[in-house]
Amino acid sequence: MPKASRRRPAAAPAVRPQRGVVTITRQVHFNSAHRLYNPTKSLRWNQAQYGLCTNPHWHGHNYVLEVSLRGEPDPVTGYLMDLGELKRILHETVVDRCDHRNLNDEVDFLRGIIPSTENLVIASWNQIAPRIRPPARLHCVRLYETPRNFAEYHGPDAS
Amino acid sequence: MPKASRRRPAAAPAVRPQRGVVTITRQVHFNSAHRLYNPTKSLRWNQAQYGLCTNPHWHGHNYVLEVSLRGEPDPVTGYLMDLGELKRILHETVVDRCDHRNLNDEVDFLRGIIPSTENLVIASWNQIAPRIRPPARLHCVRLYETPRNFAEYHGPDAS
Amino acid sequence: MPKASRRRPAAAPAVRPQRGVVTITRQVHFNSAHRLYNPTKSLRWNQAQYGLCTNPHWHGHNYVLEVSLRGEPDPVTGYLMDLGELKRILHETVVDRCDHRNLNDEVDFLRGIIPSTENLVIASWNQIAPRIRPPARLHCVRLYETPRNFAEYHGPDAS
Amino acid sequence: MPKASRRRPAAAPAVRPQRGVVTITRQVHFNSAHRLYNPTKSLRWNQAQYGLCTNPHWHGHNYVLEVSLRGEPDPVTGYLMDLGELKRILHETVVDRCDHRNLNDEVDFLRGIIPSTENLVIASWNQIAPRIRPPARLHCVRLYETPRNFAEYHGPDAS
Amino acid sequence: MPKASRRRPAAAPAVRPQRGVVTITRQVHFNSAHRLYNPTKSLRWNQAQYGLCTNPHWHGHNYVLEVSLRGEPDPVTGYLMDLGELKRILHETVVDRCDHRNLNDEVDFLRGIIPSTENLVIASWNQIAPRIRPPARLHCVRLYETPRNFAEYHGPDAS
Amino acid sequence: MPKASRRRPAAAPAVRPQRGVVTITRQVHFNSAHRLYNPTKSLRWNQAQYGLCTNPHWHGHNYVLEVSLRGEPDPVTGYLMDLGELKRILHETVVDRCDHRNLNDEVDFLRGIIPSTENLVIASWNQIAPRIRPPARLHCVRLYETPRNFAEYHGPDAS
Repeated sequence: MPKASRRRPAAAPAVRPQRGVVTITRQVHFNSAHRLYNPTKSLRWNQAQYGLCTNPHWHGHNYVLEVSLRGEPDPVTGYLMDLGELKRILHETVVDRCDHRNLNDEVDFLRGIIPSTENLVIASWNQIAPRIRPPARLHCVRLYETPRNFAEYHGPDAS
Repeated sequence: MPKASRRRPAAAPAVRPQRGVVTITRQVHFNSAHRLYNPTKSLRWNQAQYGLCTNPHWHGHNYVLEVSLRGEPDPVTGYLMDLGELKRILHETVVDRCDHRNLNDEVDFLRGIIPSTENLVIASWNQIAPRIRPPARLHCVRLYETPRNFAEYHGPDAS
Repeated sequence: MPKASRRRPAAAPAVRPQRGVVTITRQVHFNSAHRLYNPTKSLRWNQAQYGLCTNPHWHGHNYVLEVSLRGEPDPVTGYLMDLGELKRILHETVVDRCDHRNLNDEVDFLRGIIPSTENLVIASWNQIAPRIRPPARLHCVRLYETPRNFAEYHGPDAS
Repeated sequence: MPKASRRRPAAAPAVRPQRGVVTITRQVHFNSAHRLYNPTKSLRWNQAQYGLCTNPHWHGHNYVLEVSLRGEPDPVTGYLMDLGELKRILHETVVDRCDHRNLNDEVDFLRGIIPSTENLVIASWNQIAPRIRPPARLHCVRLYETPRNFAEYHGPDAS
Repeated sequence: MPKASRRRPAAAPAVRPQRGVVTITRQVHFNSAHRLYNPTKSLRWNQAQYGLCTNPHWHGHNYVLEVSLRGEPDPVTGYLMDLGELKRILHETVVDRCDHRNLNDEVDFLRGIIPSTENLVIASWNQIAPRIRPPARLHCVRLYETPRNFAEYHGPDAS
Repeated sequence: MPKASRRRPAAAPAVRPQRGVVTITRQVHFNSAHRLYNPTKSLRWNQAQYGLCTNPHWHGHNYVLEVSLRGEPDPVTGYLMDLGELKRILHETVVDRCDHRNLNDEVDFLRGIIPSTENLVIASWNQIAPRIRPPARLHCVRLYETPRNFAEYHGPDAS
C-alpha cells in the first residue's frame, strides 16, 4: 500500500473529482507507400497536377497520426478514456491496416480514395469515430505526412 | 543607438500598432513521480483499472506544460504579456511545486486528486487562472505526459 | 502504369471524393535579427520594458512559421491546395523578405512595427491572406520565436 | 512479384553486397520513478549532494534509450541485425523491467546501484551485451534522462 | 558598414583564426518507397527474413540524412566548408536521385543493392566522398529511416 | 526515510559502484545576432564568400550548445559530475555572455573571431575547458546553429 495512505487520519479517504471538458490526444505512427494519382485522368494530367508525387513507382512517408477526444473525465477514474485503449483502437482501425502497406492498392477503407493528406484524415476519422463511446467524442484527427506538412479534420460538423 | 533611427528623417518616429486577438504560448517542464490510484477503491480495482500505472512503488514522467493566453497586444509594447513574466507565474503556480515531487503525496493543490493528465490540466488551470490579468485571458493549458500523450483544457466555459 | 490499375475490372475507374472541411498546414523557417524597441520612448523605458530583448546590438532567432488553411478538398485532386504552392507563397510573402534580415530595419512590411511575436503573426497574416484563393481560406498563422515561445493569429474576425 | 524483376533480362538477378563496418541504432523508451540516494550516507549528506534529486518521495522521468551495434552487414540480407530483433532484446533486458517501475526498489539488475544516468548506462550495457551475437557487437548505450541531459557508455574497453 | 568597425582604432583590423580539427554536419531529407527484397531468394525466404518489410506493394519513409565532414577551418573564412555548398552536393548526389523515388527500382547508384539502412549509408558515402575536397574529408554518413532507427558509416577505414 | 531501506535486512546497506568510462552531456541554449564578416577583406569579397550571411544589418539564431564530459563516475555519488554544476559553468562561460548579444561586437572572448559555427565551437571549448576538473575531462563541444546545421570540436588533440 502506498505511503500516503498510511499517513492519513482515520477518516475515509476521498477523491476530489475535477470537472470540465478536456481534450486528450494519443500519437501513433505508420510507414507507407503511396502516390497521388487520379485514375479517371490521363497520366499527363496527373503529372501536371502532382509532379513527382504521382511517380508510378511510388514514394512513401513516416506518417504520424494524432487523435484527440473531448469530454469530461470520469470522477472515479480521472480518465476521459484510457489512452492505452485508444492506442489499441487506433492500431485496429488505422495503423495495422496502413503500416508497411501501399495506401493506393492495399488498404480496404481507402479503395478509390486519392491518398492526399486531406483525404486521409477524413477517411481515418470515418474509421475511428464509430469506435469512440460516450462520454468521449472524437474531436480531431491530425496526420503529419512529414514534420513540415500536416492535415486535420474535426468531423462533418466542422466549418 | 540603433542604426535604423539614425537614418530616419527629422519627423517624429512612430510605431504602427498591430490590432487583433492573438494567442501566445509559453512552454515549461518538470519531472515528477506519480501513480494512478483511487484510495476509495480496492487495490484489485485499481489494478484492473490502471494496470502498471497504479504501481505502488510509483513511476514518473518528464512533463511538458504549454500555457496559452489570448487577447490584443498592447499598442505601446507589442506584447500581450511579457512571456518572461508568464514563465515566472508558471514556475510559482505549477513548476516549483511539482518539479522533483510526488504528485500524489507532496503537492498541496493536488491533494485528493487522481493525477491523470486530464485532472492535472484542470487543476493547473485553476492555479494559473487567478494570476492572469486583463487584457490577457487564460486560453489553454496543455500538458504532455509523454511526447505521445497529452491533455488540454480550455476552461470551465469550454464545451 | 501502376499495378493497381491493371487489376481493375473493365468498368471505368472511379474516385471516391472525401467531403468535409479540413485544415492543412505547411511549416517554413527563417533566421533573423531583431530587437524589441519602441522608438517613441526613451532608452530607459525600453530597457525597463524589454530588458535584454532591447539590446541595441541586436539578437536573433531561428523562426519557425506554420501557416494553416481551411476548406473542402477538391473532389478531383484531393487537395485543398497544393502544399508546394503554399510553400512558394510563404517564401514570397514572408521567408524571402525576412530570412537573414533585420526585422526592425530591413523588412518593408514590418516598417514601424515593434517585432514582438504577437505583432509578427498579425503582420504576416496581412501579407499572406491576399494570396490565398477560395475554396481555401487562411485559418491560422503560428510563429515560433523559440521552441518554447510562440504566437498564433486567426485573423481579424477571431475573438 | 515486384515490377523491377519483370523488366530484367533473362540473366540471373544479382545483389551487390555493400562491404564496410556500419553502426545501427534503435531507440526505445520507458517511464520510471527514481531518486538519487546513497543508503550508506546520512540524509543530510544526501541532501547536500543531490538536492531535490534525493527527494524521499521520488520523482521520475521519460527515459529514452538508444542502443548502437557495430559490424559488417550480412551480404545476403543487407542487415547487420534485424532492428526488430534488437527492439525485442532491449524490451526483455531493460524496458520491460524498468517501465512504470521504481529504479531504486524494483529492478533486480539495479539492486544496490545509485540510479544516476551514468550508472544506468553501465548497468544497462551489462544486461544487453550478452544478448548481442557476432558479427554484431555492442557499441554504445545512450540514455536520455531528459531531452537536455544524457549519458553514454562504450563498454569496458573505452577510455 | 558594420557598427563594430566604426568603433575600432585606426590600427588595421585583424582576425584571430581558430585552429583545430572540427566536424561540421548538414542535415537533408527525402521521401522514398522501398522494400527489403533479395531477388536471388524465394518469396518465402524473403518473407521469413523481412516480414512486412518485404511487402511487394512497397512501403516508404521520410529519410533524414546527416553528413559530417572533418578538418581545420580556413583561417580567412572561418569555414571548413560552406554548408550551403555541402547542401548542394548532397542534393546532387543523393536527395535529387532518391526523393519521391523507389529505392529498389529507380535509383541508378542503388541498382542491385538491397535498400537496408545499413546498405544505404555505405552506398551514399560512395556517392558523396568523391565530391568532398581537402582540407575537408568525409567523416560520417548517418541515415534515419525513422526517428527511432538509424545507421551510420565512417568509411572503408573504420573498424 | 525511503521504503526500500525499511525492507532491507539488518546488515549494513551497500552500494554497488559501476566502473567504466562514461560520457555525460548537458544541453543549454542562447539566442544571438551575428554576421559572417572578415574585416580585413572588402565588402565585395565578403559578399562573394558569405552571401546573405554577411548582411551588415545582421541576422540571428537560436543556438543550442551540447557539452560532453568523459570519465569514471564517482563510486560514492554515481556522478561523473553534477549536471547542475555543469549547467552553471556553461552559463557563466558561454550562455550569459552570448545570450541576447551580438557575437561579432559584444562578446569579449569572441573579439576578432569570425563567428562561424566552426570557430564558435573552438572558442567555446577554450572558455569551458579550464573550468572542468578531474576526473571529468572535456570531451566534446557541439553547437547547433539551426536544427539542420551543427559543428563539433573534440579539443586540440583530436585529429
